[in-house]
Amino acid sequence: MAATTPRITAVDTYDIRFPTSRELDGSDAMNPDPDYSAAYLVLRTDADDGLEGHGFAFTIGRGNDVQVAAIDALRPHVIGRPVDALCADPGTLNRDLIGDSQLRWLGPEKGVMHMAIGAVVNAVWDLAAKRARKPLWQFLAEADPAWLVAQVDFRYIADALTPEQAFALLREGRVGAGRRAAHLRARGYPGYTTSPGWLGYGDEKLTRLARQAVADGFTQIKLKVGADLDDDLRRMRAARAAVGPDIRIAVDANQRWNVDEAITWTRALTPYDPYWIEEPTSPDDVLGHAAIRSAVAPVRVATGEHVQNRIVFKQLLQAGAIDVLQIDAARVGGVNENLAILLLAAHFGVPVCPHAGGVGLCELVQHLSMFDYVALTGTTENRVIEYVDHLHEHFLDPVTVRDGHYAAPATPGFSAAMRPESIAKYRYPDGSYWANATAAPDPHTKGAAA
Amino acid sequence: MAATTPRITAVDTYDIRFPTSRELDGSDAMNPDPDYSAAYLVLRTDADDGLEGHGFAFTIGRGNDVQVAAIDALRPHVIGRPVDALCADPGTLNRDLIGDSQLRWLGPEKGVMHMAIGAVVNAVWDLAAKRARKPLWQFLAEADPAWLVAQVDFRYIADALTPEQAFALLREGRVGAGRRAAHLRARGYPGYTTSPGWLGYGDEKLTRLARQAVADGFTQIKLKVGADLDDDLRRMRAARAAVGPDIRIAVDANQRWNVDEAITWTRALTPYDPYWIEEPTSPDDVLGHAAIRSAVAPVRVATGEHVQNRIVFKQLLQAGAIDVLQIDAARVGGVNENLAILLLAAHFGVPVCPHAGGVGLCELVQHLSMFDYVALTGTTENRVIEYVDHLHEHFLDPVTVRDGHYAAPATPGFSAAMRPESIAKYRYPDGSYWANATAAPDPHTKGAAA
Repeated sequence: MAATTPRITAVDTYDIRFPTSRELDGSDAMNPDPDYSAAYLVLRTDADDGLEGHGFAFTIGRGNDVQVAAIDALRPHVIGRPVDALCADPGTLNRDLIGDSQLRWLGPEKGVMHMAIGAVVNAVWDLAAKRARKPLWQFLAEADPAWLVAQVDFRYIADALTPEQAFALLREGRVGAGRRAAHLRARGYPGYTTSPGWLGYGDEKLTRLARQAVADGFTQIKLKVGADLDDDLRRMRAARAAVGPDIRIAVDANQRWNVDEAITWTRALTPYDPYWIEEPTSPDDVLGHAAIRSAVAPVRVATGEHVQNRIVFKQLLQAGAIDVLQIDAARVGGVNENLAILLLAAHFGVPVCPHAGGVGLCELVQHLSMFDYVALTGTTENRVIEYVDHLHEHFLDPVTVRDGHYAAPATPGFSAAMRPESIAKYRYPDGSYWANATAAPDPHTKGAAA
Repeated sequence: MAATTPRITAVDTYDIRFPTSRELDGSDAMNPDPDYSAAYLVLRTDADDGLEGHGFAFTIGRGNDVQVAAIDALRPHVIGRPVDALCADPGTLNRDLIGDSQLRWLGPEKGVMHMAIGAVVNAVWDLAAKRARKPLWQFLAEADPAWLVAQVDFRYIADALTPEQAFALLREGRVGAGRRAAHLRARGYPGYTTSPGWLGYGDEKLTRLARQAVADGFTQIKLKVGADLDDDLRRMRAARAAVGPDIRIAVDANQRWNVDEAITWTRALTPYDPYWIEEPTSPDDVLGHAAIRSAVAPVRVATGEHVQNRIVFKQLLQAGAIDVLQIDAARVGGVNENLAILLLAAHFGVPVCPHAGGVGLCELVQHLSMFDYVALTGTTENRVIEYVDHLHEHFLDPVTVRDGHYAAPATPGFSAAMRPESIAKYRYPDGSYWANATAAPDPHTKGAAA
């Protein structure tokens, strides 16, 4: 017998890790050996529609268990909520999670606890979009502007963007939305690829993959930099020779530098026309980014994948510290906070080029950019979604990239669901892959060998 | 038989929670019901000196288990380290923990993982000071300035403070240090008290405790504000009437406001001469604090207990956003990062008035201010350590406050060790207190009752 008021009955969590460090996929100046991982959750209900909400935080290996524990700590806020009310207003749960008067101490609104909130909130949006039988981008694009405004927490950002200004942006964004949705379905949303540029790849592989990227229709690629300047100059020269002058080459230092180093290093690369310098220094350093930007122009400054919340993004925009804002679908407090960030970017006229890659980040973030195009800024000019061709095979509704463009998802939801067989295989430490993996000595037990 | 090279053999962790919410101790505008807690650890060695290193992260209840899990995730970095090398250079471990290429993703340098690093690093300093048979403040004050500089991670702050500048500050700070140490032992370090001002206390209790504070020798008290302006005006009036015009009354909004509200509200309180407004808005909002400071002068702006790391403190100083810098012993990455922050504050000429209270925060942070007085800034002018008279009875070397001053600790170490019987009683959920507590319904399971 179905319950008369369907409720959330379970928040099941999973520690899922892929052994990507063995291939040097994803290697950069700060992250030499990531094992791309997901602290994954499934919201289950007692409705008779068979629908679940899926979400996850992305990590790069160790500590994924801590991230799972943080999601587990949110469970009492979610269990028992009526599904109709929850999906009609994810913003209430979002505020309740952020406002938990005890858990708040562990952030506030940053790091492990905030990513946990993002994972749970995103799972609710997945469920809400599935119930509406729309892919999330369409669910958002067709939502009432006043309702979208109510989904945003304006605390700490109202000095830069008021609810009234947000409403005006969204109302204006609806003009022509139907035409843009049709164009999106036909053509897709432009992407760029980081696949050629991992720091662990040799020059031959870099050159080959860069040429392949152009052949595949991409008009922008990205190179990881920051470990050794001579290497970077050589790799940048090789990449520029491979793709010619008309393809944009972004470079990404992954926070490797102090402010002065960032300026010196970026200027040294300027002869090869880098399109943007990404994460030149700490993601926390608003004033540092502003100093770098004014010193390295016309090279653009981009950051965001590690920016903890809307409050830091607000300041990056207020200080004129960035040319390109890089949202991440799984770093901040979920769709609600990313709505706030998209609105801030639109208000300040700064293009959003999402961070993606990892596990499932492409699958999630495409929906946010597509909403931005269809029903907020109305343009894809100077906007591209990062694309990395890794691990998509583990998702039930993987991204499709054709001719350098992300195809608009048609399946209802947030494209977050992993294949059950992938979960069974890569669940840590008891999935079949890890249970069978040779027990290697832990390289991080340093003292023992000293 | 003692090992020839003593090593760290265990990192034992404990989830300890005190039921403070039942008394409304610690209630403020954002934290109505804290259960002061510690994610506590003990470093054990196979040396034959019987010494242990104790440290903890402070939380306010729920999520303390997540914080313990984060400390557990650091264990492989610590187990097996040679004790001599570890204590001779805690900075190496500090850098290894911050630099873990996978755990770093969970911050970087913020939130749960960063507090875990702080807890472990502080435990190492506790052990190092015990082995040197000195209280930590003295251990630091008598350390070689060049060695202290080497303990600091200048990444992301070198644009504001170079190692050479830090060395010059420390070398100059040594002039007269012996005389100041003697004065400190005789007189202590000035404190101020928050005990009268919790938001949950009625006016009678506020007035009584404010008068008691003056009688006890304090020259500054603090009131929590931010829930209701009329209440705050009434409470501020009562407090001012109770203590007279010569006692400083700081007010603390615990991040309750947006920028505009902070300005309006603080100005409304100005007739009662608030000494500083603390945490007027998000701790992440450097530019917001700068705007508030310029609007509410001569009321001073103070913040820091939730400031995540040295990079944000650097910017608060660069932007001229604060008059008072409030370090916390257990929020950032431990003694090493607090050395960086004390040096930044000294370089910018901003007084440090630490946040304390909670569980054991007074015990820890007194050492840092005492070092600052004896061997860095050489002054206590406009400097006070927060004092709250809660939970000290659970520590083996509790703070002693006389005539409004913290007495200089004489016991070797960082005063971090909790009484074994307190751990046994308040360990959650299996300590004798919690095992016997009535199982109350969880007020945060909201959906179930909706």
